[in-house]
Amino acid sequence: MQNLLQGLRIVEASAFIAAPMCGMTLAQLGADVIRFDQIGGGIDYRRWPVTERNDSIYWADLNKGKRSLAVDLRKDEGREIITRLVALPGANGGIMSTNLPARGWLAYENLCKHRADVIQLAIVGDRHGGTAVDYTVNAKVGFPNLTGPEDDDRPVNHVLPAWDITAALLAATSLLTALRFRDQTGQGQKIDMSLADVALAAVGHLGYVGDRKINGNARTRGGNYLYGAFGRDFVTSDGERVMVMAISPKMWSGLLAATGLKDAMKALGDRLGLDLDLEGNRYRARRDIAGVIEAHVRTRALAQLAEAFDANGVCWGRYQSMTDLIDHDADCSPDNPIYHLVEQPDIGTYPVPGQPMHFGAVERQPARRAPRLGEHTDEILGDLLGMSSGEIARLHDQGVVAGPT
Amino acid sequence: MQNLLQGLRIVEASAFIAAPMCGMTLAQLGADVIRFDQIGGGIDYRRWPVTERNDSIYWADLNKGKRSLAVDLRKDEGREIITRLVALPGANGGIMSTNLPARGWLAYENLCKHRADVIQLAIVGDRHGGTAVDYTVNAKVGFPNLTGPEDDDRPVNHVLPAWDITAALLAATSLLTALRFRDQTGQGQKIDMSLADVALAAVGHLGYVGDRKINGNARTRGGNYLYGAFGRDFVTSDGERVMVMAISPKMWSGLLAATGLKDAMKALGDRLGLDLDLEGNRYRARRDIAGVIEAHVRTRALAQLAEAFDANGVCWGRYQSMTDLIDHDADCSPDNPIYHLVEQPDIGTYPVPGQPMHFGAVERQPARRAPRLGEHTDEILGDLLGMSSGEIARLHDQGVVAGPT
Repeated sequence: MQNLLQGLRIVEASAFIAAPMCGMTLAQLGADVIRFDQIGGGIDYRRWPVTERNDSIYWADLNKGKRSLAVDLRKDEGREIITRLVALPGANGGIMSTNLPARGWLAYENLCKHRADVIQLAIVGDRHGGTAVDYTVNAKVGFPNLTGPEDDDRPVNHVLPAWDITAALLAATSLLTALRFRDQTGQGQKIDMSLADVALAAVGHLGYVGDRKINGNARTRGGNYLYGAFGRDFVTSDGERVMVMAISPKMWSGLLAATGLKDAMKALGDRLGLDLDLEGNRYRARRDIAGVIEAHVRTRALAQLAEAFDANGVCWGRYQSMTDLIDHDADCSPDNPIYHLVEQPDIGTYPVPGQPMHFGAVERQPARRAPRLGEHTDEILGDLLGMSSGEIARLHDQGVVAGPT
Repeated sequence: MQNLLQGLRIVEASAFIAAPMCGMTLAQLGADVIRFDQIGGGIDYRRWPVTERNDSIYWADLNKGKRSLAVDLRKDEGREIITRLVALPGANGGIMSTNLPARGWLAYENLCKHRADVIQLAIVGDRHGGTAVDYTVNAKVGFPNLTGPEDDDRPVNHVLPAWDITAALLAATSLLTALRFRDQTGQGQKIDMSLADVALAAVGHLGYVGDRKINGNARTRGGNYLYGAFGRDFVTSDGERVMVMAISPKMWSGLLAATGLKDAMKALGDRLGLDLDLEGNRYRARRDIAGVIEAHVRTRALAQLAEAFDANGVCWGRYQSMTDLIDHDADCSPDNPIYHLVEQPDIGTYPVPGQPMHFGAVERQPARRAPRLGEHTDEILGDLLGMSSGEIARLHDQGVVAGPT
């Protein structure tokens, strides 16, 4: 938690990762992000991993630092509460983010009737109106066919929901951009994005489209090799696995110094007729280079290699299991200032990350827990919408809103 | 290109993906992003993919819409030019982004001497001062061990540089956040982030840390199965491959309706003693469910399945090779409004994406090409630093700056 966006208020109707992570990111930067849900929870409220008692760790981690409002969205009066909340006046309000269908009462056009300069960001599946999620988008853009061992042609799905994360952070960037634009021009707007377009743009930004259209290259599966320079995984004599790379000249000379393989690589380059000081030639000769390095690495223990690699500025990393990371790596614990021990109601106390950025102008506060569903219903109705306690009690009695259960 | 951040000026010292993509994103949103490089180009200037004549498509795609300034950074006068550029007055200036070492003359403390409220964002490898790149960070946080076929225990590197992309977009979010903070308080700041911390935070945000600490779960490789609900890839009778998923109740009932497998799944649930209407039980029973769906999919052609799936709102996607995507999918062409045919000097004309977001308040302009190295040297020195043509000529003569070659 870092108080940089203090005062900014964002109303969020969301599920799963993209929109929730956008709001969580802004909440951890100090914004007041109000997530509203159907009483009882939305479709992501029990998403795995869950605890033994079926409380979702996934939901908690993606909604850290937000406030929660539980409303019956099938009732007109429930919908009115949300509309009023989005339409509250002030330069810090009038902002909504959603990856639920922004139709009917939630449509931008409707919100504009209540506040003309509203900013609404809506994330959908694809530009044709179809459903799409991280896995289906990834299948479409071709990464599964390029991923995995070279001796196996089955597609490999990624485990990291990279497109959801990308969409979340483009959404955060977009909201701050639209806010700046509104501050300067007085104009609100609708921002539309689809998860499929997020991935389709990335394929272009990363050079795949140009490589195909200009060079005619059909990129094929490259196993664990880095593309365009040298890099691959190797097994050490004590059975550890390391990723070793050399993109820049400095990385390459460091690797040669650390391994004492300068002469061997010179001989290899001469034999192949390639100047291995050029990164592209290191890619062309990657299998031969890997053979030489493999012979070196497999006869040395991790500790010995680590010492030589670090002394020479080699770009390398050890493969850890995620369990080892979480159990034993201080970087994934409160030893790292981005992590804090947080007590999450119904779930328990565990290390929880804030944002990885360190802002020099403010002090880093501990990461804040997620709300319980409906935890802030009453304070939002009272403080923001100015309702009396009698009015709030009536809304509870009539099942329009709910508090935490 | 969408003119929302018009006037905003960001000076960038960058290489590879994270910082360049941050700047490219903001440039495509209308900011004036000035990338400066050593005369002749930095360490990413020849990164693959390159054309036959060794011009980097990678570099071009990551620097779209920016201006380029070529300077001899070893000369004091070259360094002074950059310092003056960063320190230019005005609410839209005084912003710098870098993933090169922000030390010495480029250090925040030095820039502050020239403009007290400067904002500098610096991306490094890890918090301990070590080198780290996307591949080494990924190895550290454990995703390679969780990725790939269940019958193969070799780690699988991801091909998509997901951590670089995440860092890029967190950097963009951070710069806009710090800019808003400065607009409101007058205070600039240094923003520090490391690529390793970006990945370490994501592991927490996505529930892995909580699942381990609270439940004691050691997450293992799950092949192409989705975690926590039902989803997997299947091969059709005509040899196509599809990803089929059901997370929400609606997705599940859609899948049962499309396949006519409602009774079969009911019988399966009864046999297993699991209510398959609950997503967690669909995960527990994933292998049995997959067996039933596999028998259905492998006897049907893609076209037939697609019709039934789409008619019933099934969440599914077809696996394409990236070559098929680029050659034949209209979504990855100027048929999609995010793509534009752009002529890139030295490289050629090919479809280039803008940002995937559509902003309602401005018209989308065609994506802009990348600069040639040093293309804007003279106009930056003249227009922004107010140098005379004589002064600029002297700087060229003395090798302090360079234009395009």
